[in-house]
Amino acid sequence: MVQLYDDERLDYLLADESMKIIQSPSAFSFSLDAVLLAYFASIPRKKGSILDLCTGNGVIPLLLSGKTKAKITGVEIQKRIFHMAERNIDLNELGEQLQVLHGDLKEMQPVLGQSTFDVVTCNPPYFPTPSKTEHNQNEYLTIARHEVYCTLEDVVKACKLHVRPGGKVAMVHRPGRLVDIINLYRQYKLEPKRIQFVYPKRNKEANMLLIEGIRDGKPDLKVLPPLYIYEDDGTYTKEAEDIIYDRI
Amino acid sequence: MVQLYDDERLDYLLADESMKIIQSPSAFSFSLDAVLLAYFASIPRKKGSILDLCTGNGVIPLLLSGKTKAKITGVEIQKRIFHMAERNIDLNELGEQLQVLHGDLKEMQPVLGQSTFDVVTCNPPYFPTPSKTEHNQNEYLTIARHEVYCTLEDVVKACKLHVRPGGKVAMVHRPGRLVDIINLYRQYKLEPKRIQFVYPKRNKEANMLLIEGIRDGKPDLKVLPPLYIYEDDGTYTKEAEDIIYDRI
Repeated sequence: MVQLYDDERLDYLLADESMKIIQSPSAFSFSLDAVLLAYFASIPRKKGSILDLCTGNGVIPLLLSGKTKAKITGVEIQKRIFHMAERNIDLNELGEQLQVLHGDLKEMQPVLGQSTFDVVTCNPPYFPTPSKTEHNQNEYLTIARHEVYCTLEDVVKACKLHVRPGGKVAMVHRPGRLVDIINLYRQYKLEPKRIQFVYPKRNKEANMLLIEGIRDGKPDLKVLPPLYIYEDDGTYTKEAEDIIYDRI
Repeated sequence: MVQLYDDERLDYLLADESMKIIQSPSAFSFSLDAVLLAYFASIPRKKGSILDLCTGNGVIPLLLSGKTKAKITGVEIQKRIFHMAERNIDLNELGEQLQVLHGDLKEMQPVLGQSTFDVVTCNPPYFPTPSKTEHNQNEYLTIARHEVYCTLEDVVKACKLHVRPGGKVAMVHRPGRLVDIINLYRQYKLEPKRIQFVYPKRNKEANMLLIEGIRDGKPDLKVLPPLYIYEDDGTYTKEAEDIIYDRI
């Protein structure tokens, strides 16, 4: 039996109900962004190693575990949330394949070495600087959402450090940061190869972007077909439903 | 009566048949790319000045003339094609509003000054280096399509030179060059503000991109809804038809 603390609750990870995940409204709950990143990232199926930075409660390692036999390591800086991730691995009996480390992504080289992972994924904080008001309201959420402990550049730099040459780095972010992301990817020699924009509905602006680069890759970017989440009537589109129900 | 040379022919500019344009299969015929750029670019309606680099037979100035009273200047490096643009202006009796200059976009400062235009548009050559075979086949088309006389950096640099601070620079290009374009736009302080990807059909990768930056603008990119050109049955989509029939 798993121990739940404070306002934590036990949710199903995906609609197929095969895995469970500990969440907390006040500390960390995963969003559609994580599900889309797990769907989008190109991962080795049979073996290899995957690193997930800013792993939170371990949602991306959990999602990826259903698609690959590769070893997956998550890194989380917030101790309480790291502890949720640890329990999530136990809860789903995935300790053989998944591990999570408590640490700062800027300082993982002594533990993880460099250029060792086949794939690095990351769902980083989206917003540059939190206002004082936001910071005071809820520190867990502020740290997960804002660049308090790491900037976008710190994240990209850490991805570069840990991925092997020819390995892939996949990230989910907001379209407003596309220019920064593309500049940093190229600066750190993670050549962008695939981008997919996510639109809440048809005829709306994109509100999410998925990007994958290859370390030391040659320039040749593909912009994938757009991904729509909702129909005009507010129900999921077929394509979003297939991702959420893990049919892809 | 306008004089036609060699294989030149007189086409309607748009489906509404209000303007005509001289084209030549062997020298320069405009494509959908130009029509989309003219639709996408934010232009002043009542007054102001617009510069169109790599103007070809003047298709973009002609298209924009229906939407604005701004003065429009085109620049074309190939003499034969420049001459087509000149005749196109005469043919449509637009000599009061439009002018075209024969020259190299890298060397227009003595003529055009700097930081003088409200908007700069450009449909540049898409492909980096022509192979010898391509070059020998048709020099006019090779120069229009390949970076023979100007690189992408030359183009972006010229846009920056001629647009005023706060002015807009709109370009059409291939998604494969998005990373280069975004890097160069930022390098030359043309902050990307609007991007629209063009998809030939639903569920296909994008094959064209439209981008607009503001000189010295603040970072804040919007990714507009995707634009599809064809339905699955090969007919134009409603949105493409509206653009081609100039209903927008």
